[in-house]
Amino acid sequence: MTQTVQPVLCNGEWIVSSGSNTFQAANPKTEEPMPQTFPVSPWDEIDRVLAVAAATAKEMRGWPGSRFAEFLEVYADEIEARADLLVETAHQETGLPVSPRLKDAELPRTTNQIRQAAGAARDESWRIPTIDTGSGIRSMYGAVGPVVVFGPNNFPYAYNGIAGGDFAAAIAAGNPVVAKGHPSHPETTRIFAEAALAAIQKTGMPKGLVQLIYRTSHEDGLKLVSDPRIGGVGYTGARQTGLRLKAAADAAGKPIYLELSSINPVFMLPGALKERMEAIADEFKVSCLMGAGQFCTNPGLVVIPAGDLGEAFMEAVASRFEESGSATMLSEGVRQNFLSAVSTLKEAGAAVVTGGTAGGGTGVCVQNTLMRADAEAFLKNPHALQTEAFGNGSLMVTADSTEQMAEIAEQLEGNLTGSIYSDTRGTEDADAQQIEKVLRTKVGRLLNDKMPTGVAVVSSMNHGGPFPATGHPGFTAVGVPGSVTRFGMLQCYDNVRHDRLPPVLQDGNPGGAWRRVDGNWTQDQL
Amino acid sequence: MTQTVQPVLCNGEWIVSSGSNTFQAANPKTEEPMPQTFPVSPWDEIDRVLAVAAATAKEMRGWPGSRFAEFLEVYADEIEARADLLVETAHQETGLPVSPRLKDAELPRTTNQIRQAAGAARDESWRIPTIDTGSGIRSMYGAVGPVVVFGPNNFPYAYNGIAGGDFAAAIAAGNPVVAKGHPSHPETTRIFAEAALAAIQKTGMPKGLVQLIYRTSHEDGLKLVSDPRIGGVGYTGARQTGLRLKAAADAAGKPIYLELSSINPVFMLPGALKERMEAIADEFKVSCLMGAGQFCTNPGLVVIPAGDLGEAFMEAVASRFEESGSATMLSEGVRQNFLSAVSTLKEAGAAVVTGGTAGGGTGVCVQNTLMRADAEAFLKNPHALQTEAFGNGSLMVTADSTEQMAEIAEQLEGNLTGSIYSDTRGTEDADAQQIEKVLRTKVGRLLNDKMPTGVAVVSSMNHGGPFPATGHPGFTAVGVPGSVTRFGMLQCYDNVRHDRLPPVLQDGNPGGAWRRVDGNWTQDQL
Repeated sequence: MTQTVQPVLCNGEWIVSSGSNTFQAANPKTEEPMPQTFPVSPWDEIDRVLAVAAATAKEMRGWPGSRFAEFLEVYADEIEARADLLVETAHQETGLPVSPRLKDAELPRTTNQIRQAAGAARDESWRIPTIDTGSGIRSMYGAVGPVVVFGPNNFPYAYNGIAGGDFAAAIAAGNPVVAKGHPSHPETTRIFAEAALAAIQKTGMPKGLVQLIYRTSHEDGLKLVSDPRIGGVGYTGARQTGLRLKAAADAAGKPIYLELSSINPVFMLPGALKERMEAIADEFKVSCLMGAGQFCTNPGLVVIPAGDLGEAFMEAVASRFEESGSATMLSEGVRQNFLSAVSTLKEAGAAVVTGGTAGGGTGVCVQNTLMRADAEAFLKNPHALQTEAFGNGSLMVTADSTEQMAEIAEQLEGNLTGSIYSDTRGTEDADAQQIEKVLRTKVGRLLNDKMPTGVAVVSSMNHGGPFPATGHPGFTAVGVPGSVTRFGMLQCYDNVRHDRLPPVLQDGNPGGAWRRVDGNWTQDQL
Repeated sequence: MTQTVQPVLCNGEWIVSSGSNTFQAANPKTEEPMPQTFPVSPWDEIDRVLAVAAATAKEMRGWPGSRFAEFLEVYADEIEARADLLVETAHQETGLPVSPRLKDAELPRTTNQIRQAAGAARDESWRIPTIDTGSGIRSMYGAVGPVVVFGPNNFPYAYNGIAGGDFAAAIAAGNPVVAKGHPSHPETTRIFAEAALAAIQKTGMPKGLVQLIYRTSHEDGLKLVSDPRIGGVGYTGARQTGLRLKAAADAAGKPIYLELSSINPVFMLPGALKERMEAIADEFKVSCLMGAGQFCTNPGLVVIPAGDLGEAFMEAVASRFEESGSATMLSEGVRQNFLSAVSTLKEAGAAVVTGGTAGGGTGVCVQNTLMRADAEAFLKNPHALQTEAFGNGSLMVTADSTEQMAEIAEQLEGNLTGSIYSDTRGTEDADAQQIEKVLRTKVGRLLNDKMPTGVAVVSSMNHGGPFPATGHPGFTAVGVPGSVTRFGMLQCYDNVRHDRLPPVLQDGNPGGAWRRVDGNWTQDQL
């Protein structure tokens, strides 16, 4: 019996894929293939989807934000109506725990993000409406055009190409989305697409607002992100693939927002360990092992004091790591990459304190892994010792002094986050400052006395950072309205007749949008 | 006698270049070389400049905006103190008229831009300070690192690498600048450097704040924009060179802001011509021929009604073009590019109405050139017929209907500007809207009843647009604070102790900066 291949979502219809290549995801706990088979879309199918997206973008030009807000809000409801199915499916496809992770943390975060984006679409804050009364010139951000969103393997909901932050931001900015599902959780993605389609129907939005393909060839992926019909791209995933897509999109002049890799350095000053070593070891363990450590903000590098204090801290962490034993990873590919990174780190001079090998648990699992190196080794080989081991592991580097910690910070690549722990009495303020001065320019989010996992969805969040953490240091993937503005183009109106201006730029301001008028922010009308 | 080669400005000293290649600019009016000889800087010299820039960036980390504001304001004064010399020198190097262009328009605009950037550095508006009181998270933009600024040939002041908009924006964001002068006006650039050095001395700023080189090899230019020590790049100039620099910077993950090319389409609805043809012909002539048409916002493509009305308009323009005769261009290279573009347009099906050849005036000159094609020809060959003829010329395309005008708009590449003229009684509103719906997504600045030259320096200006007009549709090169924010990185503080926060993010807000607090803009303290 031939297996039925799941259709792709094109222009509001589930259509049979025209391609002949297919794939199946696997359950990482059982290592068995999942029952559904999904298509690899060939170029003619992608081309059809792009044509629909372009026509949809044209159709929606100038539509009020409230229409996109309404869609997003109904979509959030439709997701919640499918919560049980989404949780069960994602659990099978990713091995991530049902509770609290999938059910109580990631799914609520996802609908919260969608609703926040809806809020920005409605209040038009993402547009940064700007008026200079003396010049006859007014400007705002408007929709950039169809956005292609690639979701990663590690967040089946919150970064999913059809439901995550980039998706919600692109829609809130008034753009159709071409979602590229991640092949490790296609069925979860398909359920989101059903929910999106229901929301499209309920809100009377164009059928081409949200379309879904599951997989493409590498070559077609490059064509997709550089196609003249698209306006921009959002990508979260592995660095190597991301860099290839970046090169293609850059050459075509298409804005591409990427989240690529990060080892999230944590600097541990001695006073903090003296004061509260056990508590910090607990915090670190949770941050590093949660979700099998498969977080973009996993603390993968910890710089600690050399000597007894650092040794005691490593021991405290190692015993906690051993106690929890091992963790099931998202896929065999993720496990192989993790083990290969461990090898690279060992070759570069790191030693395994605990873990470091596959097995010890259920399915595609690997031992919780703690590695160590000293500052001298790190400074001799800083590039290799920053290899990201994506998973339940971390490298601790012992440093003799604050100066040496700062030297290590100098060698860091761009990261999403960087943390500094110091004693709470302020006696290490000068040391903290010395490290911060260097670390600040290397990371998007700087933390004090806090582990980097846990990305609050607030307007001041920066889930971004200098290359190669992302492709541009000025953008955040999380937080409204900033993440929405990314998917806009700056549109200036010069001497344009008043009745032809977009409503948010007209004198009256019935929605009470915040506007920058002659340099001052106001919700008033002119 | 060996000619003395002008030194380069490195770390506050005028140093003898270590290179052996040199160049001279030419006076386009006399076609004689200018007396000064300038060096092509070899890599070891660029490397030295970059090392200084990196050390300077580190030294200035966390400095208050007021220091950069003070420098910029004193620099503006120093420029004004050298106004006569700057005007005379730029006139010789560029052939641009002393008055009103250089003396009364461009130089005052330049110091105005510098002072506006100083204002943003002082009021911190470019930082977009954002606070969420419930989360302990706060963010703002901070300096991105040393910025390399490449100035173009056509604005010896307002876009100069050491005095123009990108320069002022980069400094206002707290970054050192490595200026790359344009080889067609090196002596003008040198005088600016003298003024900058004086301002550095008077304000006690680091000597590495502003450095100057005049020219590099192509290969070294690529190395320069992708060097790990830089934070970003500003480039205004020719498309081909810009695209090479973009590829190099993109591959290294360095933000690069480019202004590359634009033909600034103007759509002329019949009612406008019926109502005020002579006035529009006057406007168009001024906009198209001013500065020998060497403006990035020159109206290079005009879509007009086919038939008697369009013919009469072309005649009215042709007679004005013939009356002014010809114009002296910036350099022989610019003239050759213009003539080559005219050839390309002819080969693609355009016919010369008037002009089209070199000569007819003083020095490196070319006749004012008007060309024509019909919509059918344009739609058959839209790419070639969008060739930018940078100079005193324009292509008029006759269209049979509003639909055909919209079809032409569909074929446009990204541009800085697009204009729509219609009658003033509103009877053509539907036609204007039909064109605008397409044109809006293709241009950064949309105008009504106004020619595109004349870029007001106001916060709502967008001097930018979709690729290939620039490298990213979300940024403007003119207008504060937007242009300044480009040279920042987004810096988030998560759980950072209050006394370690940058002052503008602390609870008290003594400077009264506008901050987004829990989604609302306010100048209040918390």
